[in-house]
Amino acid sequence: MNNEINIKTLIVKNPLKLDCGKTIKNYPIAYETYGSLNKKKDNAILIFHALTGDQFVSGVNPITNKDGWWSYAVGPNKSIDTNKYFVICSNVIGGCMGSYGPSHKDPNTQKNFGTNFPIITINDMVNAQNNLLDHFGIDKLFSVVGGSMGGMQVLQFVSNFPNKTKTAVPIACTSSHSAQNIALNELGRQAIAADNNWNQGDYVSKNTNPNKGLAVARMAAHITYLSKKGLQEKFGRKLQEREDLKFSFDADFQIESYLRYQGSIFVDRFDANSYLYITRAMDYFDLTRKFNGNLSNAFKGTKTKFFVISFTSDWLYPTQENKDIVIALNSIGADVGFAEIESDKGHDSFLLDVPDFLNVLKNFLEKSYVEN
Amino acid sequence: MNNEINIKTLIVKNPLKLDCGKTIKNYPIAYETYGSLNKKKDNAILIFHALTGDQFVSGVNPITNKDGWWSYAVGPNKSIDTNKYFVICSNVIGGCMGSYGPSHKDPNTQKNFGTNFPIITINDMVNAQNNLLDHFGIDKLFSVVGGSMGGMQVLQFVSNFPNKTKTAVPIACTSSHSAQNIALNELGRQAIAADNNWNQGDYVSKNTNPNKGLAVARMAAHITYLSKKGLQEKFGRKLQEREDLKFSFDADFQIESYLRYQGSIFVDRFDANSYLYITRAMDYFDLTRKFNGNLSNAFKGTKTKFFVISFTSDWLYPTQENKDIVIALNSIGADVGFAEIESDKGHDSFLLDVPDFLNVLKNFLEKSYVEN
Repeated sequence: MNNEINIKTLIVKNPLKLDCGKTIKNYPIAYETYGSLNKKKDNAILIFHALTGDQFVSGVNPITNKDGWWSYAVGPNKSIDTNKYFVICSNVIGGCMGSYGPSHKDPNTQKNFGTNFPIITINDMVNAQNNLLDHFGIDKLFSVVGGSMGGMQVLQFVSNFPNKTKTAVPIACTSSHSAQNIALNELGRQAIAADNNWNQGDYVSKNTNPNKGLAVARMAAHITYLSKKGLQEKFGRKLQEREDLKFSFDADFQIESYLRYQGSIFVDRFDANSYLYITRAMDYFDLTRKFNGNLSNAFKGTKTKFFVISFTSDWLYPTQENKDIVIALNSIGADVGFAEIESDKGHDSFLLDVPDFLNVLKNFLEKSYVEN
Repeated sequence: MNNEINIKTLIVKNPLKLDCGKTIKNYPIAYETYGSLNKKKDNAILIFHALTGDQFVSGVNPITNKDGWWSYAVGPNKSIDTNKYFVICSNVIGGCMGSYGPSHKDPNTQKNFGTNFPIITINDMVNAQNNLLDHFGIDKLFSVVGGSMGGMQVLQFVSNFPNKTKTAVPIACTSSHSAQNIALNELGRQAIAADNNWNQGDYVSKNTNPNKGLAVARMAAHITYLSKKGLQEKFGRKLQEREDLKFSFDADFQIESYLRYQGSIFVDRFDANSYLYITRAMDYFDLTRKFNGNLSNAFKGTKTKFFVISFTSDWLYPTQENKDIVIALNSIGADVGFAEIESDKGHDSFLLDVPDFLNVLKNFLEKSYVEN
């Protein structure tokens, strides 16, 4: 689907040894930029996307023709002000928007990788994206910012490169995927695997498409992105274009119709195998693992100035898990601010028009930038 | 699968006009009893089961050869003491353990009903089960008790028959299915419908079985029955019989293995179409609907003594929704007690060995029975 659209791609020549033990080289990273890099090259912000995001943060996504996934936060005069900052965002490896992933061809077999693609971790994603800094000649970023899985990458980035960014903003995330998080991702993977058209991941050569399973996975995830209260306020028991119940299995309720729609549009823009790989990376994420369970040690020696943001109604990565990051940073005397934003919009709050959040983000960056 | 097992069945001759407008008659209700009905016939408790329950409350379920679903609460000297009370429980209509449901033959076509079975409501379930009282010559029950969808039936029973039970114990339930509840049930239905073997519900004649879809539906539901904290304490990030991550899509984590197992054993005992029908009944449940949104009016004139029970970590039917029932009953001066039980076991608490809950239930019933 990318044939006629110009997707900026960096071919990374440096070999990257993945956590699984395999090494990749000459692999593509698809990226997009917004704004201009200044002469001092000290105004760059690397944004990390979440599970189903991509490099098209702002403006119109040329693939979907819809607004970029973070248009509320990124653009001229917005929180991440592209008049001021140079914004870079790349598709994660394992993804399906141009970066190296399971829908690419295996050079050994000339067939699509499918599930023969190596398992990717958050650490691998971050190490791959670090090559973009060299590409742009950036020694030190002004900031790394991301929500959800993007926030995990923020944490991993600072842990891997303690002095390669002046500031870091992990949003609505966790330092270690919980049992419930893993359970929900496994549910999505099982929904895909249950689709006979998945064919053990080899659906391209079989000319099938596990769209039904992928849609179910998306519906499951979508429910977790919204809060019970938010769903009740938005949908409640409102009926879908009907006066009364139909006594059938049609979508009587607006919430049913909404979920079905979310599932159906998702499969047009996302690859089922990428969904498996990226959820796997999230489940494998436990930043404390290499540090004997001590999160503070993951950030030892960093001079990076952190700002952690959580949302009251986010039950996927609740405030406490975000606070745990703050506590770990405080305990080594790192520079860290924290804001819990009041919102009924659940985990999705970071993607939506939540003014308190957008203001907090803008102010932290501006204050830190002036201090530059 | 019921060929060689004696399932007690009442054939209900009285026609029942369903909420959907259709009328059923000469339909089977499969039931089980425990303990003995006393001479005054005033010691009977009607237990209503939840989504995937059945009539085999206690002892060994002859179909699954496992303990009955409420063995912790029901039996000799237990909370619902079968030395004292006569317990009746029947499979709901729409179910798959002998009562009239989608796996029965349509007399008009001699084919399995499948999705040609009429849509069932909680009201229909309760009205059907009421026939058991006449069958046993019971004018007035000592109690109606149930958790989750069983609790909804408790509420509906008292609303329909305000003076046919002395006491009523709705547990971990709601008077109106929320948008999130509907969303989660719709997810399960879509998982089943996504399975090509479902064949629009006509899988029996096609000799297929939508077990993969049904297993995914069960996994989704199972996650909602447990609390985030409970999952973390029980599973956390523990690995499944391995020292380290395998970098594959196998079940690395115990929680993954557990979920897959729950899905796999469920399909042996449950019918996919019944899952559709019963979740639909739950979603249609809104006791306030006939009463202009006023829940109190649903209970007007009842002399029934209520005891409402909720659990702190139940996020599916949280305490507030149970309290709303208490408030509605209080506002018409009905006799109502309430207990919120501290438990990390989530919605499933009512099915598990939660001593505070079991004691509260036992004490309420005993105190009310002495007063008889």
